Amino acid sequence: MASRDESAKSRLSFTDHEVLLFHQQGKPSKLEIVPTKPMATQRDLSLAYSPGVAVPVLAIKEDPSRAFDYTARGNLVALATNGSVILGLGNLGPLAAKPVMEGQSMLFKRFADVDSIDLEIDTADVDEFINSVRYLGPTFGGINLEDIKAPDCFIIESRLRKLMDIPVFHDDQHGTAIIATTGLINAALITGRDIKTMKVVRNGAGAAGIACIELIKAMGVPHDNVILCDTKGPIYTGREESMNQWKSAHAVNTDARSLAEAIKGADVFMGVSVKGAPTPEMVASMADQPIIFAMANPDPEITPEEVASVRKDAIMATGRSDYPNQVNNVLDFPYIFRGALDVQATTINEPMKIAAAEALAALAREDVPDDMATAYKGNRPKFGPKYIIPVPFDPRLITCVSPAVAKAAMDSGVARKPIVDMEAYAASLNALRDPVAGTLQRIFTKVRSAPKRVVFAEGEEPQVMRAASNFVAQRLGEAILIGREDEVSPVADEKGIELRAGIEIQNARLSNKN
Amino acid sequence: MASRDESAKSRLSFTDHEVLLFHQQGKPSKLEIVPTKPMATQRDLSLAYSPGVAVPVLAIKEDPSRAFDYTARGNLVALATNGSVILGLGNLGPLAAKPVMEGQSMLFKRFADVDSIDLEIDTADVDEFINSVRYLGPTFGGINLEDIKAPDCFIIESRLRKLMDIPVFHDDQHGTAIIATTGLINAALITGRDIKTMKVVRNGAGAAGIACIELIKAMGVPHDNVILCDTKGPIYTGREESMNQWKSAHAVNTDARSLAEAIKGADVFMGVSVKGAPTPEMVASMADQPIIFAMANPDPEITPEEVASVRKDAIMATGRSDYPNQVNNVLDFPYIFRGALDVQATTINEPMKIAAAEALAALAREDVPDDMATAYKGNRPKFGPKYIIPVPFDPRLITCVSPAVAKAAMDSGVARKPIVDMEAYAASLNALRDPVAGTLQRIFTKVRSAPKRVVFAEGEEPQVMRAASNFVAQRLGEAILIGREDEVSPVADEKGIELRAGIEIQNARLSNKN
Repeated sequence: MASRDESAKSRLSFTDHEVLLFHQQGKPSKLEIVPTKPMATQRDLSLAYSPGVAVPVLAIKEDPSRAFDYTARGNLVALATNGSVILGLGNLGPLAAKPVMEGQSMLFKRFADVDSIDLEIDTADVDEFINSVRYLGPTFGGINLEDIKAPDCFIIESRLRKLMDIPVFHDDQHGTAIIATTGLINAALITGRDIKTMKVVRNGAGAAGIACIELIKAMGVPHDNVILCDTKGPIYTGREESMNQWKSAHAVNTDARSLAEAIKGADVFMGVSVKGAPTPEMVASMADQPIIFAMANPDPEITPEEVASVRKDAIMATGRSDYPNQVNNVLDFPYIFRGALDVQATTINEPMKIAAAEALAALAREDVPDDMATAYKGNRPKFGPKYIIPVPFDPRLITCVSPAVAKAAMDSGVARKPIVDMEAYAASLNALRDPVAGTLQRIFTKVRSAPKRVVFAEGEEPQVMRAASNFVAQRLGEAILIGREDEVSPVADEKGIELRAGIEIQNARLSNKN
Repeated sequence: MASRDESAKSRLSFTDHEVLLFHQQGKPSKLEIVPTKPMATQRDLSLAYSPGVAVPVLAIKEDPSRAFDYTARGNLVALATNGSVILGLGNLGPLAAKPVMEGQSMLFKRFADVDSIDLEIDTADVDEFINSVRYLGPTFGGINLEDIKAPDCFIIESRLRKLMDIPVFHDDQHGTAIIATTGLINAALITGRDIKTMKVVRNGAGAAGIACIELIKAMGVPHDNVILCDTKGPIYTGREESMNQWKSAHAVNTDARSLAEAIKGADVFMGVSVKGAPTPEMVASMADQPIIFAMANPDPEITPEEVASVRKDAIMATGRSDYPNQVNNVLDFPYIFRGALDVQATTINEPMKIAAAEALAALAREDVPDDMATAYKGNRPKFGPKYIIPVPFDPRLITCVSPAVAKAAMDSGVARKPIVDMEAYAASLNALRDPVAGTLQRIFTKVRSAPKRVVFAEGEEPQVMRAASNFVAQRLGEAILIGREDEVSPVADEKGIELRAGIEIQNARLSNKN
């Protein structure tokens, strides 16, 4: 498990203080809204604003579709939340959600060049939330709902989808469901299963849980083959305790009254629930070559190590980046919106979601390009039980997912502006890849493969200490800080800089090396 | 009127096609939302998003004021409209308003480094509009209302001010009122009038009209000294026709039943109404050294030329950039928000508006710095009848207005985070000025003062034609395009490039100059 330990180290390679500093330094926030057109002269002003702006105003009044030509609408997504369930942290309210939402906006831009703005909406009331968003259609090309608790998120999404003529998408539900489905397609392939006959146990009836069931049923898994469980156990026909309309839609005739009974002999376990469900004993009772997606965060329902302790034939996925097969919705939502926006889709429908899952599954089956293999230090990912889902930094994601989604939108009749030349479109997406990021990534990988010992002069300066600290934290090598220890340490303490293992402080004046 | 003709020429120095191209080229839109923090590596992702982002989330949950440290909230303003009155174009709806709103966002960024996002709200219903905005408080540091018709804008503004704990400001009302007040302060000074005894006639009872009356009354103009007129004439106590609560608040005891009767002997006329009100005869009947602010757009109520035809002693201001003393709210709103945001103000109140007006009036009385004088080609603006209001490109505006507004917020008890060192604050604002814009401005001015004849090679290329066209349009000199005329003209037509006067096409092969 060398790779796991290494990743785990990188997971913890920052202190709380460093995270806060990351957010605060330079300017507070992770986003900036900048003009894309020149504003240096009076003439620029006259073109961008009064009186010139009257020309696009009147053009849009005459033909509303021109808004896609003259304004940001066609590339602008609102990220709407009330903070009622933030990451794994619970209901912390809208203001506390803001850093998460800004982070998501960064992901949209970084991975798919989609502009997005967070909207934190200060109400726990479903109707008020809907009223706050429903009239914003002229502003945006799409709405992404985020961090809203179930069942409110179902009501909000379905009502806004009816009220608005742009995509409304709850990525916690569908983003996760799509990646889980990607994994399921490939795991079925590897284990020689037919999706139409597999028996599935789904644990957790929250937002992602329900969406996942709906998507795999749309893919062909029969209704009666899926047992949905919540904290009270299997949802069987006639159960009355702790039910709602979204759960009862998935009730089945079953004698199972516990997760242990439901899981016996099952082909697939999919959980977004809590650590400990299922137990190793339950996993042992599953069918041969079971497919186990333990997606609870930060602690999976059951770890690959725990599964391995009872059987070696399972295919596993988790929500964590330090195990193989991470179910991470950043693999889909930026690219799905990219595709939907590029055909001016009125919605994101089931065919578009299925197209994304199938495209991602196909991508995992392809050979990875050399530059990606480099980033994996020789452990070239290869389709198989430990690689059924692509990885987030795969540069092929955008050209894989977005055209598939765009095409599905066109085929299902929800594209306002179909793409005529799909090849040219894919090429244009290729150009969106951030060349700097890719290059940096390769440089870091190269340096990391042969860690260096680097001297940092002026080591009493906080910026230098911070650079040395980051250098070590990113596992690029060892750092030697030149400075007086009795000066360095108090400053580091005061500024909250972690002088971690791997940093040596040397006083040049006292050195006996000349 | 040389300066007027010259400006008028620059007003018209673009075709409709050029405006559309400005909006469409590169990417449609005038805004982009970009990350301010690095996103190149997995570690960056972990800091900006999961799992690192949990740290600022929890910090904000514990202390909501930390949102100003870790998110964009403290520098982010929503620009909200329903497009019910766009520029001078009427009710064209929310979608058609988008180019205007994006233009305003550019102004906020360019002049005061305020990030802002447009929200076009698709409802003509006041309550629905309010419900759409009222819950967005956690997202923004302030709300700027824009292009909303009266009286809806009064209701929306006053209700949102009560519902939200951040500034809600309708710049069409208050922005314009503040600049008009700036002009009034200085015009009173020049004509030796006391604001407390002057007689004012206000024509036009729309958004800006009412706000202007309220502000000058807050400054000390007595209620009984102001006659408000609308299309039905003076609003006198007891008038019943075409009234509303905002008009009747300003009803006075007067025998005047027409604008002509009201204006007789008045010290001040202020109009945001229509061309033709008042007539030259009415202006002739005003007091000595009358103060005439004819702010209707694009055509003033009465032009400086028309006034000059009946009297020479008037001080005039208009809404146009091609006459002296332009009442342009870009002089205030970016800087007022800058000051309000910097003290985390809960509102923008009357003392803050008055402080802005007084600071702007004082700025107009100061000597202008040399670099600005250069931009005015030797016509150094100097305080007097033709210069009672500063100009939009004055680089001192930010250090003049924002600290005054911040201080007024502190003094009136609405600053959540008072500024301790106002001098350091002013210095930090100084650093926000866009150095590139200033430099470009100076270069253009210099080139313009000695126009050049410039040869543009490869003149059959559309980009080159466009460069030549812009060169001439900006009055930088004459352009010679090298190319075959029978190739150049059809391409120019096809691409919508204006081959205006000042562009000469020469075929190098046919030239007899060697």
